[in-house]
Amino acid sequence: METSHLIWTEEKRTELYRSGVLSVRDTVCRSPKGKTRTFTVIDSSDWVIVVPALQTEQGRQFLMVRQWRHGSRELSLEFPGGVIEPGESDEAGAARELAEETAYKAERLIKLGSMRPNPAIMSNQVHFYYGENLTSLPGQNLDEDEFVDVERISEEEVLAGMGRPPYVHALTAAALALYLTSPQVNRG
Amino acid sequence: METSHLIWTEEKRTELYRSGVLSVRDTVCRSPKGKTRTFTVIDSSDWVIVVPALQTEQGRQFLMVRQWRHGSRELSLEFPGGVIEPGESDEAGAARELAEETAYKAERLIKLGSMRPNPAIMSNQVHFYYGENLTSLPGQNLDEDEFVDVERISEEEVLAGMGRPPYVHALTAAALALYLTSPQVNRG
Repeated sequence: METSHLIWTEEKRTELYRSGVLSVRDTVCRSPKGKTRTFTVIDSSDWVIVVPALQTEQGRQFLMVRQWRHGSRELSLEFPGGVIEPGESDEAGAARELAEETAYKAERLIKLGSMRPNPAIMSNQVHFYYGENLTSLPGQNLDEDEFVDVERISEEEVLAGMGRPPYVHALTAAALALYLTSPQVNRG
Repeated sequence: METSHLIWTEEKRTELYRSGVLSVRDTVCRSPKGKTRTFTVIDSSDWVIVVPALQTEQGRQFLMVRQWRHGSRELSLEFPGGVIEPGESDEAGAARELAEETAYKAERLIKLGSMRPNPAIMSNQVHFYYGENLTSLPGQNLDEDEFVDVERISEEEVLAGMGRPPYVHALTAAALALYLTSPQVNRG
């Protein structure tokens, strides 16, 4: 497929701001027609999200986490996940976040896919996993300033609620899309 | 449901950086335990994404757009969408972006839901619409520096491809989740 008419090239980056979790830069890019324009891009570590499923007599349940989100200033009911730490693999990060946030461990973590949380303005990736055959651990392992409730919600309720509060995190919806369409998931 | 043990309050904002499309601020917040911590938050306008479906003899097809994304520095095959302009409603923004990017108009735009693209670090919302009974317009209406190809892809191919290149935009996967789970969509 011929795509050269769509491709931009990068000419220069200027860092504007850096915090512990992200940095912001101006990037001068040249269009397919040869004109330059400056775009703001945010760099951040990669993220991981896990869809953890339990089979019960009432059917399938997801492990969800409820927490306050500082950007939106509201509570959000989401799949567990977080930032991948330097040096750890995506899968190790998925297992670690699942354990820390939910106090569960999956016998198997299946990779559902990798996507860009926001390819227009962010350079990082988010890696999605499905976890099944879950066993419980002694407890959550949260940072001192993390306040996260774990809840077991029926798959039916999550599907019905997606797209309005408290199911407001778009990456949780993205994880759900990969769960619903993956040939690797046995949806029972 | 008792949730006060999860809620943070905001004490102070300091703007750090502003561009045409986004601004970055430090925000001092107080935890449920009374300790303060500073979080970086990005403010931006709301966004809109449309899932436009055509019925053909070969089955359902989606209108997708292929474009270069500056954050990820790669091509991305996505549902059409964009930034809502000051003063326009979400639905008007959806109709406008659909027309500008794909040169199609929907007889009906059905609201699928509203979510947060990134509630941890961004304050904006993204509004999702489904469009059917599409009719074509004379042509795209792109800005001088927008290079967007329109493609008709079978629903089957989009579902199978989600989660790897070129289906890498997480908000396109989020839109797909709402499309797949919405009681308002006749999936034929």
